[in-house]
Amino acid sequence: MGGRSRMWLYCVACIILGWISLNIADGEELKKQKLSWSRYAAAEAEAVASIDCSGHGRAYLDGLIVDGKPVCECNTCYGGSDCSNFQHDCSADANSGDPTFLEPFWMEHAGRSAVVVSGWHRMSYSFPDQSYISQQLENHIRTLHSIAKNAITEGKYIVYGTGSTQLLTAAVFALSINRSSPAPVVAKPPYYPVYRSQTDYFETARFRFDNTFLVTNTSDEVIEFVASPNNPDGNLRKSVFEGPNVKTIYDHAYYWPHFSAIPAPADEDLMIFTLSKITGHAGSRFGWAIVRDRTVYENMLNYISFAELGTSRETQLRTLQLLRTIIRGKNDGKEIFNFAYNSMRQRWDKLNQILSSSNRFQIQEIPYQFCSFFDQIRGPSPAYAWVKCVREEDSNCTAVLDAAKIIGREGRLFGSDDHYVRLSLIRRQDDFDLLLRRLTHLLLTE
Amino acid sequence: MGGRSRMWLYCVACIILGWISLNIADGEELKKQKLSWSRYAAAEAEAVASIDCSGHGRAYLDGLIVDGKPVCECNTCYGGSDCSNFQHDCSADANSGDPTFLEPFWMEHAGRSAVVVSGWHRMSYSFPDQSYISQQLENHIRTLHSIAKNAITEGKYIVYGTGSTQLLTAAVFALSINRSSPAPVVAKPPYYPVYRSQTDYFETARFRFDNTFLVTNTSDEVIEFVASPNNPDGNLRKSVFEGPNVKTIYDHAYYWPHFSAIPAPADEDLMIFTLSKITGHAGSRFGWAIVRDRTVYENMLNYISFAELGTSRETQLRTLQLLRTIIRGKNDGKEIFNFAYNSMRQRWDKLNQILSSSNRFQIQEIPYQFCSFFDQIRGPSPAYAWVKCVREEDSNCTAVLDAAKIIGREGRLFGSDDHYVRLSLIRRQDDFDLLLRRLTHLLLTE
Repeated sequence: MGGRSRMWLYCVACIILGWISLNIADGEELKKQKLSWSRYAAAEAEAVASIDCSGHGRAYLDGLIVDGKPVCECNTCYGGSDCSNFQHDCSADANSGDPTFLEPFWMEHAGRSAVVVSGWHRMSYSFPDQSYISQQLENHIRTLHSIAKNAITEGKYIVYGTGSTQLLTAAVFALSINRSSPAPVVAKPPYYPVYRSQTDYFETARFRFDNTFLVTNTSDEVIEFVASPNNPDGNLRKSVFEGPNVKTIYDHAYYWPHFSAIPAPADEDLMIFTLSKITGHAGSRFGWAIVRDRTVYENMLNYISFAELGTSRETQLRTLQLLRTIIRGKNDGKEIFNFAYNSMRQRWDKLNQILSSSNRFQIQEIPYQFCSFFDQIRGPSPAYAWVKCVREEDSNCTAVLDAAKIIGREGRLFGSDDHYVRLSLIRRQDDFDLLLRRLTHLLLTE
Repeated sequence: MGGRSRMWLYCVACIILGWISLNIADGEELKKQKLSWSRYAAAEAEAVASIDCSGHGRAYLDGLIVDGKPVCECNTCYGGSDCSNFQHDCSADANSGDPTFLEPFWMEHAGRSAVVVSGWHRMSYSFPDQSYISQQLENHIRTLHSIAKNAITEGKYIVYGTGSTQLLTAAVFALSINRSSPAPVVAKPPYYPVYRSQTDYFETARFRFDNTFLVTNTSDEVIEFVASPNNPDGNLRKSVFEGPNVKTIYDHAYYWPHFSAIPAPADEDLMIFTLSKITGHAGSRFGWAIVRDRTVYENMLNYISFAELGTSRETQLRTLQLLRTIIRGKNDGKEIFNFAYNSMRQRWDKLNQILSSSNRFQIQEIPYQFCSFFDQIRGPSPAYAWVKCVREEDSNCTAVLDAAKIIGREGRLFGSDDHYVRLSLIRRQDDFDLLLRRLTHLLLTE
């Protein structure tokens, strides 16, 4: 067969395959399909989803059952059987980093983001390649990063963990294998409290959390945690320590276009990401590490294996479905970033507007920066406000806010002092609205 | 209102509620319901499930895509695009404890065991009670134990882990909190290898795996792992150590009516169970501990919290659905135990029949015992055969079997010697059939 006819054959095959996959992607055929065994589960899920909780709560398939159906679980400060009662005395919860501001995105994309788990789905310990890692999901993670332009994944390995939380320790174990004396683990304040609490909890003969090295700067063999953007203050960071024996764990949980400018794709040796802060699914407990060195990668896989023989197959399947929804979404997969950026940016502006009139409270400054995702200079949209009570006598800023019915997280926990409080801006709209209301009231009564 | 009229009112209310919940339970209303957002996911799942893999493989929603649809993933020793090619030279895999013998049960109960995960299902870090633990699921776990008659849960706490694997370490951490010198962790051979490998891996200043204490028996402060029934040999066990300061971790992974007689419900201080060995879902990574002491319980919750902030919500939801299917099943929820017991019993009988003619190989003896679940004396149906090569010169029994194309797990790993091999009997029928064929051939050629 000549080159030209072969090319024609390829072309025709391409068109046919393209048509088939387009149909599958668009679900035209699926829409017509008559359902059998999945029907009951689908109807049950829709019945639960249709339970009216007044927009201030939600019923879940695994919620408590009263009178034969799951009850509404109300948002903070709402009560009643349909969550319609606002509790006027209730404190605004700005404590945890529950990323539920993304819930409306998934409600809007209900049809594509749902997934059916059959009773026999992936019962085995391992995938066909004997790993605990879905190859399909890994491909989607790589595509996601290329859309967000926030990390270079080419030539690097990927490890899954039960949340990025687990991967933080997995990284410390992996980077301290074969040591005879404990590697000092450090994190420059203010730092995400888990770096310290988790390292303390799991301390072995091979590593120890020890921030005295930040002062003396004497060791060239530290393991440094670097959150960039930083939790709590949202600023991009670089490691304090450098040198051939320094190991750096880059926690990029918030390095997505909605929380930060993306000056360039990150290209570090060990980077950790979490589903929680890109899709908002904190409850799924799913994170991944992108690792350059093969030995470190294998050591991290070993950790996961010893700790729990891999991450849940249900979680991997659902994560895949969520990433598929993002990647196949509008604007070449950029829709979720636009949605999330607009939400976060508006919240930051509103908070700024209120606090700008205050001499008592300050929030962090985040510079305008060029963002390669949006291809322009953009303002801040951080996940948290890092609030400082500027008066000397307000030495417990958390208590000051608490008295005004605002719950934040103490600065001390972040290795800072209690003139500081972290306020979460990524919770449900109900929480954020109440936070603004309580803040406005506090400033008016000053 | 008089007592009699009130009673009538209660009765009528009861009948109405009963009718409603019966209808919901039976899904009559759900069956009629017109579907909207869940339709696509349901159709997609059914399309994948209908892919023909000749009964020797399966296609999954998250499988690799070729020509627009997921490919068949073939059982061991089968190949080809539809898994119809048996690979004649292939070794029988009796190595891992993949509990896939239960797959047919879930295929048969497809309609009730499927579950739809909506895009917005439980995005938060925690349940409304601020825990990481589904209360509904906990209730179902307690009911399951009362059906199986294998554990007393009343007055005890329940902790979830990412597989029982994670709970083993969580227990060791919880039982060694506040110690100044390392608690010796022990396990009487033959023992499940993870007890040692995991304890070694996570070793801290508070505990250390050290079986020398089994010989000297000098410490009254050991932490002892007891698997009952034992992995690998299937025999019921009690702890070696006793005393007020001894802590025992009972691994009851296999204490279900299909693997063992249940002489009485277990009532130990700390018992660990895993979804893997009751429903067969090893890939889900879900286990639970039943704990008597409140402080130990809280210490275990702490471990889970430090390690990974709770277990996956998808996994908890799916586990709930599987347990619901069991509990609402035929014979007051006993159907799965009957199914699984019959499978395991038949396999054991067949294996025995083949090996009884051999002077070269012996398998463990398990006594006939009264089983309170079946309410009668019953024979053995263990998860593994613990094979001994009796000839002195067969000092590497794994190699002997390997030469006959049978893959087992080395006795050495279990703290025993290599005259022993563990053969898994809980894998797919294809694996078991091939195991029998290879064994028969081996014995014929002796």
